[in-house]
Amino acid sequence: MAPEYKSGPPDINFDVDYVIDYRFANTEQAEAEAQFVKLIKALNDVGLATEVRNGDNCSLLIFVKSASDTHLKSQVYQSRVQDWLYGIRTTALHKDMQTQLDDEPVTEAERLRLVYLLITKPRNEGGAGITPKTGEWKDVQSVFALHDHKFNKAWVVQLTSKYFLSAKDVTEIKDRFGEKIAFYFSFLQFYFLALTFPAFFGFCSWVLFRQYSPIYALVNCLWCIIFIEYWKKQEADLAVQWGVRGVSKIQRKRAAFQHESVINDPITGEEIKTYSPWKRLARQLLQIPFAIGATLALGSLIAGCFAIEIFISEVYSGPFKSYLAFLPTVILTIFMPTLTAILTEFASELTDLENYETADAHEAAMVQKIFVLNFITSYLPIFLTAFVYVPFAQAIVPYLDIFQMVVKPFAENEKQMSTPKVGFHIDPSRLKKQVIYFTVTAQIVNFGLEVVLPYVKRNVFKKVKEVQADRAAKRAGNSSPTADDHPEETLFLARVRNEADLEAYDVTTDFREMVIQFGYLSLFSVIWPLTAVSFLINNWIELRGDALKIAMETQRPVPWRSDSIGPWLDSLGFLSWLGSLSSSALVYLFCRDDGPDGAPGAVKGWALLLTMFFSEHIYLAVQLAVRTALSKIDSPGLRKERAERYAARKQYLRDIQAQEEAAHKAASGGISEGQKISRSMLEQAARESTLHGHGTPEERFWQRQQGQSETIIIGKGYIAKAMSKDKKESKKEL
Amino acid sequence: MAPEYKSGPPDINFDVDYVIDYRFANTEQAEAEAQFVKLIKALNDVGLATEVRNGDNCSLLIFVKSASDTHLKSQVYQSRVQDWLYGIRTTALHKDMQTQLDDEPVTEAERLRLVYLLITKPRNEGGAGITPKTGEWKDVQSVFALHDHKFNKAWVVQLTSKYFLSAKDVTEIKDRFGEKIAFYFSFLQFYFLALTFPAFFGFCSWVLFRQYSPIYALVNCLWCIIFIEYWKKQEADLAVQWGVRGVSKIQRKRAAFQHESVINDPITGEEIKTYSPWKRLARQLLQIPFAIGATLALGSLIAGCFAIEIFISEVYSGPFKSYLAFLPTVILTIFMPTLTAILTEFASELTDLENYETADAHEAAMVQKIFVLNFITSYLPIFLTAFVYVPFAQAIVPYLDIFQMVVKPFAENEKQMSTPKVGFHIDPSRLKKQVIYFTVTAQIVNFGLEVVLPYVKRNVFKKVKEVQADRAAKRAGNSSPTADDHPEETLFLARVRNEADLEAYDVTTDFREMVIQFGYLSLFSVIWPLTAVSFLINNWIELRGDALKIAMETQRPVPWRSDSIGPWLDSLGFLSWLGSLSSSALVYLFCRDDGPDGAPGAVKGWALLLTMFFSEHIYLAVQLAVRTALSKIDSPGLRKERAERYAARKQYLRDIQAQEEAAHKAASGGISEGQKISRSMLEQAARESTLHGHGTPEERFWQRQQGQSETIIIGKGYIAKAMSKDKKESKKEL
Repeated sequence: MAPEYKSGPPDINFDVDYVIDYRFANTEQAEAEAQFVKLIKALNDVGLATEVRNGDNCSLLIFVKSASDTHLKSQVYQSRVQDWLYGIRTTALHKDMQTQLDDEPVTEAERLRLVYLLITKPRNEGGAGITPKTGEWKDVQSVFALHDHKFNKAWVVQLTSKYFLSAKDVTEIKDRFGEKIAFYFSFLQFYFLALTFPAFFGFCSWVLFRQYSPIYALVNCLWCIIFIEYWKKQEADLAVQWGVRGVSKIQRKRAAFQHESVINDPITGEEIKTYSPWKRLARQLLQIPFAIGATLALGSLIAGCFAIEIFISEVYSGPFKSYLAFLPTVILTIFMPTLTAILTEFASELTDLENYETADAHEAAMVQKIFVLNFITSYLPIFLTAFVYVPFAQAIVPYLDIFQMVVKPFAENEKQMSTPKVGFHIDPSRLKKQVIYFTVTAQIVNFGLEVVLPYVKRNVFKKVKEVQADRAAKRAGNSSPTADDHPEETLFLARVRNEADLEAYDVTTDFREMVIQFGYLSLFSVIWPLTAVSFLINNWIELRGDALKIAMETQRPVPWRSDSIGPWLDSLGFLSWLGSLSSSALVYLFCRDDGPDGAPGAVKGWALLLTMFFSEHIYLAVQLAVRTALSKIDSPGLRKERAERYAARKQYLRDIQAQEEAAHKAASGGISEGQKISRSMLEQAARESTLHGHGTPEERFWQRQQGQSETIIIGKGYIAKAMSKDKKESKKEL
Repeated sequence: MAPEYKSGPPDINFDVDYVIDYRFANTEQAEAEAQFVKLIKALNDVGLATEVRNGDNCSLLIFVKSASDTHLKSQVYQSRVQDWLYGIRTTALHKDMQTQLDDEPVTEAERLRLVYLLITKPRNEGGAGITPKTGEWKDVQSVFALHDHKFNKAWVVQLTSKYFLSAKDVTEIKDRFGEKIAFYFSFLQFYFLALTFPAFFGFCSWVLFRQYSPIYALVNCLWCIIFIEYWKKQEADLAVQWGVRGVSKIQRKRAAFQHESVINDPITGEEIKTYSPWKRLARQLLQIPFAIGATLALGSLIAGCFAIEIFISEVYSGPFKSYLAFLPTVILTIFMPTLTAILTEFASELTDLENYETADAHEAAMVQKIFVLNFITSYLPIFLTAFVYVPFAQAIVPYLDIFQMVVKPFAENEKQMSTPKVGFHIDPSRLKKQVIYFTVTAQIVNFGLEVVLPYVKRNVFKKVKEVQADRAAKRAGNSSPTADDHPEETLFLARVRNEADLEAYDVTTDFREMVIQFGYLSLFSVIWPLTAVSFLINNWIELRGDALKIAMETQRPVPWRSDSIGPWLDSLGFLSWLGSLSSSALVYLFCRDDGPDGAPGAVKGWALLLTMFFSEHIYLAVQLAVRTALSKIDSPGLRKERAERYAARKQYLRDIQAQEEAAHKAASGGISEGQKISRSMLEQAARESTLHGHGTPEERFWQRQQGQSETIIIGKGYIAKAMSKDKKESKKEL
């Protein structure tokens, strides 16, 4: 079609590896130009070719690719050599670069990773040292790779058209978006498949058993253990298959790391920038007040709303009750996000303060804090209902009168606001309602916020921009950024400008979501066994949704490597362990036919504790058993690794064979037939003894019997004699 | 001195590596001779020189040493290469054997280990396949190395003359007796040093605090954690320093292993003898009934005697009370050893049944079972007193009347044997007495049995033998074994014959002793804080005693390697964890001023459980913290390893430098000054485009700006324009 052709071929990236978005709106022209020049020079100095185009309002798009193919290749080869030296890859590389690269072609992810490192690595490590948004490069808004739209479309379609991801699919993701994201998808996939069991069993127990069935709780805990342990295995396996096992040892330095002192490594002799671990520890200890503070802040907010809700729903009997019932929800929806945002900000500040050398350590520390926050916001409400409201309601409710002021304006008389002194009954279904809310409603809402909303936002944003652009164009002829686009690039540049406006993709948010979800299953699913069913459905969509998000709604992520899902594994372990406690407690509290009536008296402390105590220790024991059992099972990855190691050994052995041969030959006499050597030794020894007197005692000792023949003869003699003596004695005795 | 000289030089071993004790008393002469010949041939075939001498009644002593020095060397070199290939040693070997051996001289332990392997390894692995006491070699009583008496004497003297073992001492032990025994001694040493703290603190709290002080319990638990975690670190460190880290990967096949099927390893292609893991698992499950059975058997015995004791000491009031009080002790001393012996035998049968491929796995399984037995016999009595007798005595004692029959013969009337209905009081000091017995008396007794008794036995035995020998000599002139000894060897052979009669040394028994001792400290020391003091003294002697035992009272052990104290580490961990429970329980039960009075009512179940619950979780948390903290600390071993790895890397890099150079050169243009390449690329690209039409879109895209110079110019242009536009707009707005 003419117009299409006119505005350039569709979906083509012109071999661009990365686009640098340079925004100088808030900078003096002179400075902006100087910095721009510096940028281009820096890029060229590390062997990158550059092209510049106009960006949207006050920004330049600098297109970057590796200047020469050989340079890129050498980069790849070097990184592979490094992997080998750190024991990440077990197969030695071919000494010749070209053949090596032919054997193992460069994946897109590998290329993009290395180019990104070239751009961002500090100068002393051979990079251009461009650090977006920080230091002298504050004008560099972002450095992002271009989406391969043809692939993306195909990919999304393919995912949505099948039930499970095959190994091939995951490998494809790995080759495109890097191991880290591939790990997320394979985890999600694994989790999805694993969920089928609790979903099925949960449905059964929902139909067959009565509520809070101990059997379900037991099976659920068991499943949690097996799920986590098996994933660990799976993870290690994938890491080996992808050749990234132990890649976390090669850690990316953080640009933001501030060193206190520079010491020379006694071993390597190279300079290391260090930061006193004690100082860091001291700062890490700030996490404790932070955690407490967060718990108090969020906790009091949640507890408060909770109390108000109860007060209104179960004490208040005046008008507008139905409307007032929404009050707590309103309060939460207003304050919770703000509070969370503040705390999150605080957490990241804290993490920066802890000043880690490596990106991984930094991320792990951050994840830890975020997990605490999410733990409170997600689980506290249910904990309150289950372990405070239900058992102790009767004791607490009377004190709720303090919330009268909340409803005073509406109440007509005191009576409506005072707790019924007698016959107050808790709402036993409340707990279940809450769990259902968190495991179904919240999931759907979340999905909406995550995938649908941004989509809408983006389109609106786009429209607005177009309108602006038109107006700008009208106002001043060719001063609009698109004005001097080459017709062949119009489409392409439009696309790039859009991608420049997208947000960066952060895999941790998606991980967090899944881990928190797992928490509901392990902690509370005994309340409502259908939980897993809802998650099963949700996660099928989730996976596709995330794919869509990466493909359409965020910038193409930098394909980082990793050898596991990192800190999240601990979170999972923690939740499943806690599950063994909470499930048992719930079962004990609610399993009785009548169920708890909110009277504290009903709960036997020692029995409850004993239940939890046993449940926990059974959990730990089973975990140990499962671990040992799984460690015995072989897996393709491990087999692969063994095979490679074996090959490496064989290779080496071939090298030193010569030496061994020699050694063998020297001793071969001894090996083939002993007689000869001992005789030869003997002669030589005899010679010596004739030479200097009588020889050493040792020599004489070993010369008494000449070779095995004589040893045998003498030995036989001894035996015969001993036997005969035996006979004699036995005769005597007769 | 003439006589001494006449009977040969003292303390000389005539270069003998091993002595094979061949006993044919219960074999037909013909068969015995045939087997003997086979033996000698087998030894010679693997390059070992042999000499035969007469042994005591119906036995031959076959002296073995490596026939040729070169052969031995090649053996050493091969084993070192194997270590390197399995990643046990990080430093690559020198390609030339001789220089390698000159750099790293062969230690005595290494030589003896390899010769022993030569003798015992199966034929297909290049050994003589001599398996003492089993199969066709049932007549081979033992294969043992000769003690270096000169060294031993010096060694024992040296140890007894100093307070601590220096690193040098441990290394010496390692070079003589192998890493496994060296690990035992360094553990014992480490434990001894670590004990100084609880000994000191225990003494203080004995003086300052009142009994069952929570502070002591807390500190003690903390110490346990640090002790174990720190030892783990120490252990890993030693393993690295001794170059045996991961040596457990190279596992010795068990000769007794019976394979079901032979499969070809898909990777190595070599044959592997396998045994169905499921069958093994099924057999391992027998451990559960075994454990239960053992617990019941030993438990009922202990509990029974315990009950009788209480009955007699606190109920019975008839005559002979003072004598009858010893009844339970008598019963125990009679039945306990027999029962334990039976169970141990049963355990080893069970372990054989489990049919492990490797010696390590076999040993670990056995250790596990033995630990269970020892756990019951050592700790159950105290557990009974602490958690059954003291809290529940008043409820139980009345039922003790069933033991009346035990004392019936002595009692004069019923009254003497019936429990006082009122005012029965438990003996609160009983628990303490018991602990003191186990931690002081038992230790001393044990030492006696372990070191003194064998010494006496040996001397008596020796005397008897000499008398026999004399009589034999008198009876039939020269038929006594010593008759045809060469005068030069008389002394030597006498020594060898004695060593042949000694028992083999088993390090696990010594380990067991220490682990059980640690158990008393972690579980019960809160009852009597001086426990550690007693252990401190005991262990100083213990270490010397063990040295003495190895040097004098057992055959010289085969110097096996190992990279840790193996399964005992788990036992230690288990005991220290259990300590967190038992200490807290004891403190809760006994800490109150009045102390428990044997009335069950006094104990609040939930409070007790809560105490234990918290104590345990604090324990686990602290353990985690200590682990992470220690993992951060650097250690000489790790530094050594890092240095070696670094050296290896550097070496490799030097090799492939050439390739990298080349790669760099190709791209150097890009690295040195970008301009050139992009221009050169450009020219080449231009050429292409002239050649075939207009070139690809990609080429055209990257040709729009010629090198960085032009990129810069154009970029500046864009910036200027954008700025000016800004100005215009801002003007308008004004």
